[in-house]
Amino acid sequence: MMSRTAYLGPEGTFTEEALTLLEPEAERLPCATVTAALNAVRAGEADAAVVPLENSLEGGITTTLDEFAWGEPLLITAELLLPVRFSLLARPDTEIVHVKRVYTHPAAITQCRGFLNRELADAVVVSAPSTAAAAQEVSLPGSPYDAAIAARIAGEHYGLVELRGDIGDRSDTVTRFVRVSRPGPLPEPTGSDRTTLVVFLADDHPGALLEMLTEFSVRGVNLSRIESRPTGQGIGRYFFHFDFEGHVADARVGEAVAGLHRICGEVRFLGSYPRADGVAPQIKRGTGDPEFAGAKEWLARIRAGQV
Amino acid sequence: MMSRTAYLGPEGTFTEEALTLLEPEAERLPCATVTAALNAVRAGEADAAVVPLENSLEGGITTTLDEFAWGEPLLITAELLLPVRFSLLARPDTEIVHVKRVYTHPAAITQCRGFLNRELADAVVVSAPSTAAAAQEVSLPGSPYDAAIAARIAGEHYGLVELRGDIGDRSDTVTRFVRVSRPGPLPEPTGSDRTTLVVFLADDHPGALLEMLTEFSVRGVNLSRIESRPTGQGIGRYFFHFDFEGHVADARVGEAVAGLHRICGEVRFLGSYPRADGVAPQIKRGTGDPEFAGAKEWLARIRAGQV
Amino acid sequence: MMSRTAYLGPEGTFTEEALTLLEPEAERLPCATVTAALNAVRAGEADAAVVPLENSLEGGITTTLDEFAWGEPLLITAELLLPVRFSLLARPDTEIVHVKRVYTHPAAITQCRGFLNRELADAVVVSAPSTAAAAQEVSLPGSPYDAAIAARIAGEHYGLVELRGDIGDRSDTVTRFVRVSRPGPLPEPTGSDRTTLVVFLADDHPGALLEMLTEFSVRGVNLSRIESRPTGQGIGRYFFHFDFEGHVADARVGEAVAGLHRICGEVRFLGSYPRADGVAPQIKRGTGDPEFAGAKEWLARIRAGQV
Amino acid sequence: MMSRTAYLGPEGTFTEEALTLLEPEAERLPCATVTAALNAVRAGEADAAVVPLENSLEGGITTTLDEFAWGEPLLITAELLLPVRFSLLARPDTEIVHVKRVYTHPAAITQCRGFLNRELADAVVVSAPSTAAAAQEVSLPGSPYDAAIAARIAGEHYGLVELRGDIGDRSDTVTRFVRVSRPGPLPEPTGSDRTTLVVFLADDHPGALLEMLTEFSVRGVNLSRIESRPTGQGIGRYFFHFDFEGHVADARVGEAVAGLHRICGEVRFLGSYPRADGVAPQIKRGTGDPEFAGAKEWLARIRAGQV
Repeated sequence: MMSRTAYLGPEGTFTEEALTLLEPEAERLPCATVTAALNAVRAGEADAAVVPLENSLEGGITTTLDEFAWGEPLLITAELLLPVRFSLLARPDTEIVHVKRVYTHPAAITQCRGFLNRELADAVVVSAPSTAAAAQEVSLPGSPYDAAIAARIAGEHYGLVELRGDIGDRSDTVTRFVRVSRPGPLPEPTGSDRTTLVVFLADDHPGALLEMLTEFSVRGVNLSRIESRPTGQGIGRYFFHFDFEGHVADARVGEAVAGLHRICGEVRFLGSYPRADGVAPQIKRGTGDPEFAGAKEWLARIRAGQV
Repeated sequence: MMSRTAYLGPEGTFTEEALTLLEPEAERLPCATVTAALNAVRAGEADAAVVPLENSLEGGITTTLDEFAWGEPLLITAELLLPVRFSLLARPDTEIVHVKRVYTHPAAITQCRGFLNRELADAVVVSAPSTAAAAQEVSLPGSPYDAAIAARIAGEHYGLVELRGDIGDRSDTVTRFVRVSRPGPLPEPTGSDRTTLVVFLADDHPGALLEMLTEFSVRGVNLSRIESRPTGQGIGRYFFHFDFEGHVADARVGEAVAGLHRICGEVRFLGSYPRADGVAPQIKRGTGDPEFAGAKEWLARIRAGQV
Repeated sequence: MMSRTAYLGPEGTFTEEALTLLEPEAERLPCATVTAALNAVRAGEADAAVVPLENSLEGGITTTLDEFAWGEPLLITAELLLPVRFSLLARPDTEIVHVKRVYTHPAAITQCRGFLNRELADAVVVSAPSTAAAAQEVSLPGSPYDAAIAARIAGEHYGLVELRGDIGDRSDTVTRFVRVSRPGPLPEPTGSDRTTLVVFLADDHPGALLEMLTEFSVRGVNLSRIESRPTGQGIGRYFFHFDFEGHVADARVGEAVAGLHRICGEVRFLGSYPRADGVAPQIKRGTGDPEFAGAKEWLARIRAGQV
Repeated sequence: MMSRTAYLGPEGTFTEEALTLLEPEAERLPCATVTAALNAVRAGEADAAVVPLENSLEGGITTTLDEFAWGEPLLITAELLLPVRFSLLARPDTEIVHVKRVYTHPAAITQCRGFLNRELADAVVVSAPSTAAAAQEVSLPGSPYDAAIAARIAGEHYGLVELRGDIGDRSDTVTRFVRVSRPGPLPEPTGSDRTTLVVFLADDHPGALLEMLTEFSVRGVNLSRIESRPTGQGIGRYFFHFDFEGHVADARVGEAVAGLHRICGEVRFLGSYPRADGVAPQIKRGTGDPEFAGAKEWLARIRAGQV
């Protein structure tokens, strides 16, 4: 039976491209927002969802981060790194000299600032909810906008032509997407895994963050991302997203997250899944599974008086 | 001579309200974007700028964070915490039942989600670059939007009426604004100060963040905010914004930031300024200015062989 | 059946006094050295041994420390703190003005230095292997020594009279004794326990000691004693004795010692036993047994995908 | 003018050998005890003293450690590592089969245990205050002892013959000696230096040792020795001796010891002096003198508002 995967639509978004690469066979269910895509999974209307988590220029996608932290729990089961290429798209017969009003997502404005200053210095640039929505809007007859900045795939979907391709200021911009499902069996450890957590402090005392990081470092678990987000309870109150090397089935990772569970207010496990880059962690002396198993046996022996 | 202060306009933004409170006497220079407001200071067109830095619901204002990190250096000289109250604003004679298209900033969408679901469940909500821009757009004849969500002050500026007031989901939402100037003398230490830094890693080795936090903790300097931002050089490469207690003129703070300067790639000092909340830090034993002075004298003596 | 306990003799030592207090009913087996007492247990000639571990003036008893580290393993099952009172003891008819040669253990020389300088400034003071051996020697006809410094109990054993009592410079000097047995079931946790370990480094890299201490601190286990001893493999190569709060049956202690086992070269468990002072540790938030049990269950659930 | 150096005598000790190597030209002043040798310097009767600090088998020489901590301050100006070779020494005409009573220092007993068990299993071994004192005693007509274990040099001094040479269990036993003077100018930094401190805690709270070690590690200063000693105020109260890489004139060392001065109760500086092994430390990124100087300049600039 074919699986159905929700994504941040409309058709033509970078997210759809990510979904195509992650699950070529899946039936695609476009949703208007990240929240809607995740809710489709929660409600059982989709088996999974693909949503952006962070962008190498723009940083964390806060809607995704906050949905993962506050919404009904979901499990990340895969990640994908997708290079981002922007195109200037317009209705057929538009020439670039006629482009006076450009519509696109604010992240694309930032990422194409050099191009815009150089070639469209006089154009007004207006923020859109997504790059694909911008393309869709521009494709409508009577749109107040002359062009959209979006993925080329969006142009194909909405019958736009590409006035300029690859207009981003940096050619190495990457967006990291994740696939999430309802809670269930975790992906098997592969030796090159990543784990994602959300951690709320028990009480916001000085040194609390240092204590959390020490739970990782003392077991040789390397962080790859830390992101603070406001709890909503006033300036100065934050919770944290952590990405780190390894699978929760690894002994060192398990003990570290159990340590956080003990000392923190709430720990929400978001998943352990294969790393997109396939890099295997360097396991620090004394923190491999065999060493944890050996220490456990030794501890049982000494507790039994068999020194 | 009256000073001139740039701000994120147009007239009627929360930022203007913050500016009014911080500098009641200043001439106000509205700018279209945070970047434009900061550039006005850099170019000497304004003496200072007031911009939002973070919001207790939405988190860091990434444009501000990235401007402070990458743009020509500026100095934070004051901060203000401003409660955020949203109103639903429309052209005169509009009734709430006729509101089908709402225009506002995405942060306001998030913060008013409860109200929107409850009273405007069928309305389309469209993202605007700022709440004041939304109010301005709605005030135009022929606007495709029926209402804006913005500060009441924006309605007054643009001739809109308030259909509903205080529609945010939480009544305690606060935005933190800062005033920045061109580099120059720092505000005097008050005993209740905050310092803000941007830190780039020298090399992104495991434990680098723990090392940075240890530079603070070993001198008894408490962090109040940490925010990671992408360097733009690929997923997994971040730099950090830190807010912490104390003034760089304090010995413990000076030694801590000098420590970061030594071990990190680049440290950009963004300012030491009075805390808006007036809270004085608890100074840990051994980290006060007299103890630093005593240790310095003692060190000089033992280096001179006067043990 | 009566148990037999070896101790550092001859009869009349402080160690015999400690044994009397720890095991009033035991048959006492005096031995010439700490090593001999411990070997009596190892060989099955005694059920237990009582030996000094440290003194509040002199520090660790290195013979005991090194026997515990290098000899055939034994288990500490009890500890006792014994105030040390020294007497100047002589053959009957000796007067203090005739005392020209004093014999005693070097620790007693140190601890009675004030008395010796004050009242026996011209006497020669010679080192003896133990205070009781000094008393025994003085009791022999033809001894070259006029007086011994030892426990009053030693005087009674060897027919000496007390010329002066309580001659130590400090009245609060205490020696800590431990009772050891062959490996077997540990004493039950009492809520006021101490655990003793010997730890050898895997490789003597910079920061190795800090890493060991972090294994304790991250689980809220407080050290009460750390003592470095040479490994015998050259200056700069040490191993460590640790005493710390809690019983190895406590979850936080178990995880800490297992952590040391993983990262260190060799960990020798010397026992968990009731503290002589009866003080219960303050258990830091997140490190109690219920919190460890809760974290373990939570970890099992998330590993099973039941987030 | 010839300098005069006190040492732990009598003539013929290993300490005299160390002195000969450290100061071939000095006039030698033998003293009965370590304390007497140090007091000779304090009183101006000698310009310097050479005393043992630690032994690779026996550990710290507690008399020396405690004199350095509690006595009138002195300054270590040099160190020497001396291999220790023991000989069995007797009066002329003694044969090894006649040796029934052996006299020597307890450390020598330990270090020659294999030899004693193998070749003198039936002999009684008695503790002496020093190996040279043992040789002297054995040289006296009518001595109750048949042989001494001491340095060969001691035999030469006292007219004894060597029955057996190099009888230590390990051929790599080393004693570390130091030369001390009254406080005055420090030896110049050589790039291969060691610094020695004594540190008393301000209050003996959990984690105090970890905090001290962090003051070193955060500035990249590697410890080479840590030794706890009782303060005399009861079991569980210790102070610490630290040896570490570098000279107090080095910026990283200076800041670390100043940090200890701030957070600890008392820090006694015992000296910075060339390492006997000539090893130069690996200076961790960000902790070299130029980096400290750069950070200091940068800090001055930002404090002056020159960001």
